[in-house]
Amino acid sequence: MGMLTRIDHIGIACHDLDTTVEFYRTTYGFEVFHAEVNEEQGVREAMLKINETSDGGASYIQLLQPLTEDSPVGKWLAKNGEGVHHIAFGTADVDAEADAVREKGVRVLYDSPRAGSMGSRITFLHPKDCHGVLTELVTSATDH
Amino acid sequence: MGMLTRIDHIGIACHDLDTTVEFYRTTYGFEVFHAEVNEEQGVREAMLKINETSDGGASYIQLLQPLTEDSPVGKWLAKNGEGVHHIAFGTADVDAEADAVREKGVRVLYDSPRAGSMGSRITFLHPKDCHGVLTELVTSATDH
Repeated sequence: MGMLTRIDHIGIACHDLDTTVEFYRTTYGFEVFHAEVNEEQGVREAMLKINETSDGGASYIQLLQPLTEDSPVGKWLAKNGEGVHHIAFGTADVDAEADAVREKGVRVLYDSPRAGSMGSRITFLHPKDCHGVLTELVTSATDH
Repeated sequence: MGMLTRIDHIGIACHDLDTTVEFYRTTYGFEVFHAEVNEEQGVREAMLKINETSDGGASYIQLLQPLTEDSPVGKWLAKNGEGVHHIAFGTADVDAEADAVREKGVRVLYDSPRAGSMGSRITFLHPKDCHGVLTELVTSATDH
């Protein structure tokens, strides 16, 4: 209980990553902290660091462009249009937190955590078990 | 530029505030930090404090139950179902930031900021000008 120690990021799906990065840069002054392609997740993504957090981590805006139309984010975009795709809570131990929420009856989408941004390990909770919010749990490479 | 210094909160619309508060408490251990009714916004809300931020503020999950079906959040819920309604960036000067983004061509929904949670002052940016994301700018009562 209470072992999710930060809002790690807000994941936002967009049609064109470069255009959306440029919007966040010119409108708010947010710069790209990190960019990568995650083939397993089927996304091209950019992380915009907004602030540091009291648990030693940070909070980001994560912009996501699907690599293909039939990827999960691609299908989500086709249905919903651009917008907030998921939210992510940071924890020092994503394995233990995933087990804990699973025991409470929340469906966890992966049997074990997978590779997320910047060397993190992530899992997702089913949005229908979370009042409509696709919720990620993440342990960053620097969490300890 | 760069004067939005934190993710202040993620606003999540729900049908029943008590049930949703209880979900966040039992699943993650998040407790209610503050609750209030905002008649002008047409919502009953609970703020769950997740972490403190490097600008001296904090990040919250904001759970929102509409007071009436014909309120903005009520209409949004009827169309979209439960889920992330908006995101909010914190700034020391919401008036200046609202003016700055307006000058860049982003529609600001209020002529001047209105009362938000916990004595804050808030405004919203049109989601169609923000790649589908209803975006709030907020100066908290403790921002300076």
